[in-house]
Amino acid sequence: MAKEKKQSRPRAETPKGFRDYFGAEVDERKQMLDRIAAVYHAYGFDALESSAVETVESLGKYLPDVDRPNAGVFAWQEADDATWLALRYDLTAPLARVYAQHRNDLPTPYRRYAMGPVWRNEKPGPGRFRQFYQCDADTVGSASMAADAEICAMLAETLEQVGIPRGDYVIRVNNRKVLNGVLDVIAPQGTRAADESVRTTMQRVFDSEKRADILRTIDKFDKVGEAGVRELLGKGRLDASGAYIDGVGLDDQQADRVLSFLTAKGDTNEQTLQGLQETVGDSSVGAEGVWELRQIADLLAAQGYGPDRIVIDPSVVRGLGYYTGPVFEAELTFEILDEKGRPRQFGSVAGGGRYDDLVKRFTGQAVPATGISIGVDRLLAALRAKGRIGGTEHGPVVVTVMDRERMADYFQMVGELRAAGIRAEVYLGNPKNFGNQMKYADKRGAPVAVIEGGDEKLRGVVQIKDLILGSKIAENATLEEWKERPSQVEVSRGELVDEVRKMLSAQDG
Amino acid sequence: MAKEKKQSRPRAETPKGFRDYFGAEVDERKQMLDRIAAVYHAYGFDALESSAVETVESLGKYLPDVDRPNAGVFAWQEADDATWLALRYDLTAPLARVYAQHRNDLPTPYRRYAMGPVWRNEKPGPGRFRQFYQCDADTVGSASMAADAEICAMLAETLEQVGIPRGDYVIRVNNRKVLNGVLDVIAPQGTRAADESVRTTMQRVFDSEKRADILRTIDKFDKVGEAGVRELLGKGRLDASGAYIDGVGLDDQQADRVLSFLTAKGDTNEQTLQGLQETVGDSSVGAEGVWELRQIADLLAAQGYGPDRIVIDPSVVRGLGYYTGPVFEAELTFEILDEKGRPRQFGSVAGGGRYDDLVKRFTGQAVPATGISIGVDRLLAALRAKGRIGGTEHGPVVVTVMDRERMADYFQMVGELRAAGIRAEVYLGNPKNFGNQMKYADKRGAPVAVIEGGDEKLRGVVQIKDLILGSKIAENATLEEWKERPSQVEVSRGELVDEVRKMLSAQDG
Repeated sequence: MAKEKKQSRPRAETPKGFRDYFGAEVDERKQMLDRIAAVYHAYGFDALESSAVETVESLGKYLPDVDRPNAGVFAWQEADDATWLALRYDLTAPLARVYAQHRNDLPTPYRRYAMGPVWRNEKPGPGRFRQFYQCDADTVGSASMAADAEICAMLAETLEQVGIPRGDYVIRVNNRKVLNGVLDVIAPQGTRAADESVRTTMQRVFDSEKRADILRTIDKFDKVGEAGVRELLGKGRLDASGAYIDGVGLDDQQADRVLSFLTAKGDTNEQTLQGLQETVGDSSVGAEGVWELRQIADLLAAQGYGPDRIVIDPSVVRGLGYYTGPVFEAELTFEILDEKGRPRQFGSVAGGGRYDDLVKRFTGQAVPATGISIGVDRLLAALRAKGRIGGTEHGPVVVTVMDRERMADYFQMVGELRAAGIRAEVYLGNPKNFGNQMKYADKRGAPVAVIEGGDEKLRGVVQIKDLILGSKIAENATLEEWKERPSQVEVSRGELVDEVRKMLSAQDG
Repeated sequence: MAKEKKQSRPRAETPKGFRDYFGAEVDERKQMLDRIAAVYHAYGFDALESSAVETVESLGKYLPDVDRPNAGVFAWQEADDATWLALRYDLTAPLARVYAQHRNDLPTPYRRYAMGPVWRNEKPGPGRFRQFYQCDADTVGSASMAADAEICAMLAETLEQVGIPRGDYVIRVNNRKVLNGVLDVIAPQGTRAADESVRTTMQRVFDSEKRADILRTIDKFDKVGEAGVRELLGKGRLDASGAYIDGVGLDDQQADRVLSFLTAKGDTNEQTLQGLQETVGDSSVGAEGVWELRQIADLLAAQGYGPDRIVIDPSVVRGLGYYTGPVFEAELTFEILDEKGRPRQFGSVAGGGRYDDLVKRFTGQAVPATGISIGVDRLLAALRAKGRIGGTEHGPVVVTVMDRERMADYFQMVGELRAAGIRAEVYLGNPKNFGNQMKYADKRGAPVAVIEGGDEKLRGVVQIKDLILGSKIAENATLEEWKERPSQVEVSRGELVDEVRKMLSAQDG
């Protein structure tokens, strides 16, 4: 009977791949997002909070993980009209829908920022959740490279404002058009013709599948290096596990051209731009890409953003298929220890680029757009690794209950403390066992406990216990310096607030 | 062909019953929630952000609208193990799951607050959305009435902190146990027996269905008044549309008892409590309910919360089936005009109560809990109605583009303005038509526009245009006072920031 009852109980579990965030985790993320929002706001970006639910039709198929195009969304069908709805998987697809829907009421260009959870129906793994935060800023309706430069500059300022000092980050900028120019140059004759009618089916395949393959391959530059990419662009290579990975099938000359693009980064932006100019040869789209990068570099240099902060780097690819021009990536350059204790660079915390075709899906009219997305959890992890957040805030002052008939007295105390700006609470569990009250204060991270028993009440005094000092003394009872500071003091009831304040500031000092 | 293409485009529309929030709407809600969070935090409540997605099993069937038990959730099935998942419909059910799951790591009592969207798969209507914000504070693990009193006191302080002045709100407190006591007293002999074995099937029906019917009926007290409730408790009544509503079928004596409960509110809390004491007769659960209310009233009185702010009121029922003790409701008492221009009381903005059985669903062990939920949109609407938020913030200063080769100059200007704490942006649309730039500044709500053409650049000056004053002059060109303040001034480039600041503070003054 008892067993039967137990089985009918629901399990108290978050669904697989989801998690809860408690106390300081929520506060710290909020603090960081508030700082980011303040920068975005100062730059003239307006907040937007679109609905978490979209029609599947309007979300489209732009999931970022090109290697796993089947990775999906959480979707369901409406009962009345069979419309498929889904949770948004990022903040860019909803922005395109919002702009298309409200374009007559919105200013053009429309600068907006958005922060909030997104959902991915993917296989969860360690540290990989199916709900996570994104934080985006985008400019819709401006074709000017000044919009891209502004996004990069704002990203640099944002990183510094949240606590990543100059020198610990670099924003790398590339242009998808330059890559397209390189691919045009190496494409078999005929596939480069602008006139659709002269293209053959085989040639089109080079345009779509081959280009996607090349994109995926050069995105592995960081992992497998120049030699690895060369093999993968050609016949293929044995990977670390011993499996043979098929190559893209370019000939040596073609692979050379791709690699000369990937490694075109020089000591200065000017050198890099010259190298890229050579690589794109006579491709007009390639030349346009180089010209766009030059404008971005010039605008940023004029505002004092040198290549120590924002740099042209052809090895930045960014997987997303929808980018059409400049792409950006913010990387943190300091080292942390990985799970095996080896030092490694922290890596990417934000990425973005220009996507001129997303709004066109809805309206048929091209609407240029560019933007950036910050990986909120990655950036929080970086700030924790640098000791910029976490570990400093105490819990509330806990007023203990010595006499349950005098709850009003204890509430009076926390009222006085709060009025003085001090976080405080009365113990609301069963007060019978005083040890439990102290355990509770410990679990709450309380810095101070207040005690007023019958004897104290009669004498008009309260006991104030320094729990931080108390635990230090408990750890090391011989230290001289702490002997002068008693861990518990008795003061008159009227001095309660002053004494607690004094104790708190001594703890912080 | 063109038509065919158009049909294949996705529609740019939020799904039915969902909406987007723009700029000031997002900022104002955030500002209000920040203020609420500050109060909750000061009272020792910790933030909790649980996942938006729960298993359907763990959400249970506690949807608040008792009249429409089929109103549902957005749910879908996992592909791999066929688990049903759903979006949370409130923040209380997830709290019960979180506490049951993490109870060994959480302090007891656990005070937590949560704010965020919830989703209801209901038929949308005007002003009725399927995604909306809730903002809850709960204490789990305390059976003490001091926890309920604290929630009420904190709610009062919260309302005052966000901008509802004392006198414009009242928090009404009742106790479900008192009502249960009344129902015990009027139940047919035999159904009151504690021993299950002596109950008959018919008598059990009075316990469940009849009690739910009575609950629903007295919840209509506000709408149909004393006489209406009397009819509905008895044989039934004709409603406004002419339809006959079946009654609950109580006899006169039973209905009298229910009505004497509903109308027991006296001039003081003490009078109300005495009236309730009489109404519950010899019911022990009823007496317990009255005793609990007395404790709450005494604790609040000792802290200075008189019945002008928090009052015992037996007419508060709160539909939710899961309440087991005290129930609370915060009502705004000022009048607003309804959609037809008639004055009416603003009404409820928050509600809550004690629900001792929600965690037990998971663990089998009773865990007492009490809390409050603020209707975020209702409270925002109230603050707007009172002029406490909205309509004050300007857009950014807009720096116009007179020469697209000198974008760096314009970015330099906004950089200086931002460094001085002034929100500013460069126009990033096509700069060819200056009129469009001014239209853009207008749409942005820009208070000031900055102009630096080739001539100004040569002379080392900038034009600064007061757009607020400009539009006032345009509205009423004859007003003397504005003639002295020119709507456009020329200053040296070095004085840009000072002049803009001066203009902004003159606008605010």
